[in-house]
Amino acid sequence: MKLIIEESYEELSQTTAQILLGHMHQDRRVNVSITAGNSPKRLYELLPPLTKNKKHLSNVHYYSFDEVPLKGEPLGMTAGLLREQYFTPAAIPESHIHLLEPEHYQSFDDEIANAGGLDVMLIGIGGDGHFCGNMPGSTQFDKLTYKVEMRPEYPWYDGLKAELGDKMPDAFFTMGAASLMKVKHLILIANGKHKASIIKKALTGPVDPMIPSSILKLHPNLTVILDQEAASEL
Amino acid sequence: MKLIIEESYEELSQTTAQILLGHMHQDRRVNVSITAGNSPKRLYELLPPLTKNKKHLSNVHYYSFDEVPLKGEPLGMTAGLLREQYFTPAAIPESHIHLLEPEHYQSFDDEIANAGGLDVMLIGIGGDGHFCGNMPGSTQFDKLTYKVEMRPEYPWYDGLKAELGDKMPDAFFTMGAASLMKVKHLILIANGKHKASIIKKALTGPVDPMIPSSILKLHPNLTVILDQEAASEL
Amino acid sequence: MKLIIEESYEELSQTTAQILLGHMHQDRRVNVSITAGNSPKRLYELLPPLTKNKKHLSNVHYYSFDEVPLKGEPLGMTAGLLREQYFTPAAIPESHIHLLEPEHYQSFDDEIANAGGLDVMLIGIGGDGHFCGNMPGSTQFDKLTYKVEMRPEYPWYDGLKAELGDKMPDAFFTMGAASLMKVKHLILIANGKHKASIIKKALTGPVDPMIPSSILKLHPNLTVILDQEAASEL
Amino acid sequence: MKLIIEESYEELSQTTAQILLGHMHQDRRVNVSITAGNSPKRLYELLPPLTKNKKHLSNVHYYSFDEVPLKGEPLGMTAGLLREQYFTPAAIPESHIHLLEPEHYQSFDDEIANAGGLDVMLIGIGGDGHFCGNMPGSTQFDKLTYKVEMRPEYPWYDGLKAELGDKMPDAFFTMGAASLMKVKHLILIANGKHKASIIKKALTGPVDPMIPSSILKLHPNLTVILDQEAASEL
Repeated sequence: MKLIIEESYEELSQTTAQILLGHMHQDRRVNVSITAGNSPKRLYELLPPLTKNKKHLSNVHYYSFDEVPLKGEPLGMTAGLLREQYFTPAAIPESHIHLLEPEHYQSFDDEIANAGGLDVMLIGIGGDGHFCGNMPGSTQFDKLTYKVEMRPEYPWYDGLKAELGDKMPDAFFTMGAASLMKVKHLILIANGKHKASIIKKALTGPVDPMIPSSILKLHPNLTVILDQEAASEL
Repeated sequence: MKLIIEESYEELSQTTAQILLGHMHQDRRVNVSITAGNSPKRLYELLPPLTKNKKHLSNVHYYSFDEVPLKGEPLGMTAGLLREQYFTPAAIPESHIHLLEPEHYQSFDDEIANAGGLDVMLIGIGGDGHFCGNMPGSTQFDKLTYKVEMRPEYPWYDGLKAELGDKMPDAFFTMGAASLMKVKHLILIANGKHKASIIKKALTGPVDPMIPSSILKLHPNLTVILDQEAASEL
Repeated sequence: MKLIIEESYEELSQTTAQILLGHMHQDRRVNVSITAGNSPKRLYELLPPLTKNKKHLSNVHYYSFDEVPLKGEPLGMTAGLLREQYFTPAAIPESHIHLLEPEHYQSFDDEIANAGGLDVMLIGIGGDGHFCGNMPGSTQFDKLTYKVEMRPEYPWYDGLKAELGDKMPDAFFTMGAASLMKVKHLILIANGKHKASIIKKALTGPVDPMIPSSILKLHPNLTVILDQEAASEL
Repeated sequence: MKLIIEESYEELSQTTAQILLGHMHQDRRVNVSITAGNSPKRLYELLPPLTKNKKHLSNVHYYSFDEVPLKGEPLGMTAGLLREQYFTPAAIPESHIHLLEPEHYQSFDDEIANAGGLDVMLIGIGGDGHFCGNMPGSTQFDKLTYKVEMRPEYPWYDGLKAELGDKMPDAFFTMGAASLMKVKHLILIANGKHKASIIKKALTGPVDPMIPSSILKLHPNLTVILDQEAASEL
């Protein structure tokens, strides 16, 4: 694990952009998987001017890594956010966007393998220690992409139900820890005081299914980028 | 995980030899880590005629992955077995043998990284589910190469004490699961009826520190080679 | 360049089989490109029993690297030979056979790149120094897959015309030197006294478009396997 | 070959910095070879603030790729320039600087191979088409690191003599085209109107020993970054 502690969220975002761009600027197909959410907000302001309509980046393909289908909505939660935050502002062509969808989740790892594997994946970490859709209580570490039933006994059920209301689906889908181990370069970003405690647990505590991101320490090429606040308990 | 079930121990050994030789015959430094013990016995009859004094294999370097120092003995247990089973019959030059030793275990992962990483590692599995020196009760999954104190409370202590007697050291040394995740191609071999039960648990059960090899399912490029007997409970 | 000189054609063929099998036995898609012709005849007796109907080799995909369409024939020359020598005896499923054909030669390198690139390619060498369809007089070293017009001024035209007669097409197709440089492991085999002179020129002489295989010395990971006779002038 | 044409020298320099930083920010040893001279001047203003004293970049090692020893001088020309332009301002520790020197040029490729190979190399192009020390008239494409005698019949002799005067050595040293083919990602930068003509010849003309950089089109993973002026004849 390479740990990078940046002075600020701005520098965290710039370093993350450099790493992603560094991977993209090669003369071969490059498969990138990126996260939506709050942590990469600034990143998605920095990147589009550097990637939009760049002919020399036509080798770059994008993959999502989880999906929460929403009842009554045309787009799943992840697809909607990725489009809003990055694909649309960066004008990524549809043929270069590969989304995890309920219909083909069982073949998603094969699809990626047949395209040469993921070169780089950017993920965040939840306050409860989740990564992608690997949540406390519903995570088995040896899974490739899998389906997670929405069960009231899971510790995250009530919170998600409150958030999604009538749009709550019966299941969601995520790449598992075994999928992520195959990513050639995994990048985890976290910023802010509210992430300090879980960062400490995930990066320095034992591997524990109730803190799913604790397994990421096993990744063969993991770069963790934090701002000072997120690193404050290390 | 790629699972290969061979008709017999002979075929298991031949396939293992092919894989190792396939890696070795490249025009770049190739770092190989190999196991001693019963499972590779036939392999070490097949390999030496194909590797001994072959000028075109001068690119191959060998690494051990664990060591049990023996009180009053010049060689550790692993070093002794590897020399007897393979390094001596294959006449591997000393400059191409890199052994994990107590004096430098803390820098062993760096030493390997600075040589380009391990291209391939061959391991076995113990009846108790151990791999390398990652034993039930003393294994933390997030370790690189580490030192294991001999504590009577560990479930394997009495058996090892009975085996080693006066030669029992105070500690032994092993590459950890995090070290193995960095190996580019990991090969696990097992043969015989007495391995059938642990193979089932390790390959199909949950990730569990009491069955250390259960973590290997997370490896990004794992090939498991079994004979019919070892596969009989799958 | 790694140079392997084997005692005999039999050992040359066995070593070649080991290298190919070594690549195949990994837990990821493996893309293999193989040659037809005389040099691999024994190889194609050794391989099929080891690859036919092996479920654990379902990760292996095959690519051809050149094609001479034949007038009035349903199959091109390369496709016909590869099917006869290997694909049919080894019962390789059609979905794992990817042939270079006139209709899509311009996108063939992209197709390969989008499948993760070629892991290993096996080629032979012609008595005139050609490799794949890169012939003396019609070869430019900086080509990816390209079309070669049949022009009477080329030194090989008369010989090919005599061989193909009425089936002589107007053009043939081949991966170029730039395509081959992207192959992760390139294997060149040659056997017999009649190859000794061209092997010497190609491996020890200057890079020269009239001896197209002289460029192969630049490959980043080239293994050359010869029998004693083919190596006799080195 | 991936061709990137940037609006300006500033953008060329920023993109180059991103690519280098992208490679560096991984959790494994990364070997970087960089050029001195005019083209990377701005790059070496951008990089040091981002790499100086960064503990998380302790995995990065630097290699030079050529050397002109200077009579009566303690440092060779390349060593002197690299130290002045980058190693000193970025405070790169001596243990991470690996310079090609006359005493060990014959083992330089092995030294690099034993450290895992070069991950990325940044080169420029001379007005005469040279790259590294591969000069018109003295270049053979199949060379690894080699020694070039200073012979008056070479087209570049008089110019170099005029430049170096009494410091002119008897020979200089350079990695050859075969060395560069092994670099995992090769980056060529050029800026300014005076590079436009040679860029056209090198990138679009035939492979020709009198324009040594014409061979670079064969590299399996080459990124060329130009400003508008250097690209103006393409």
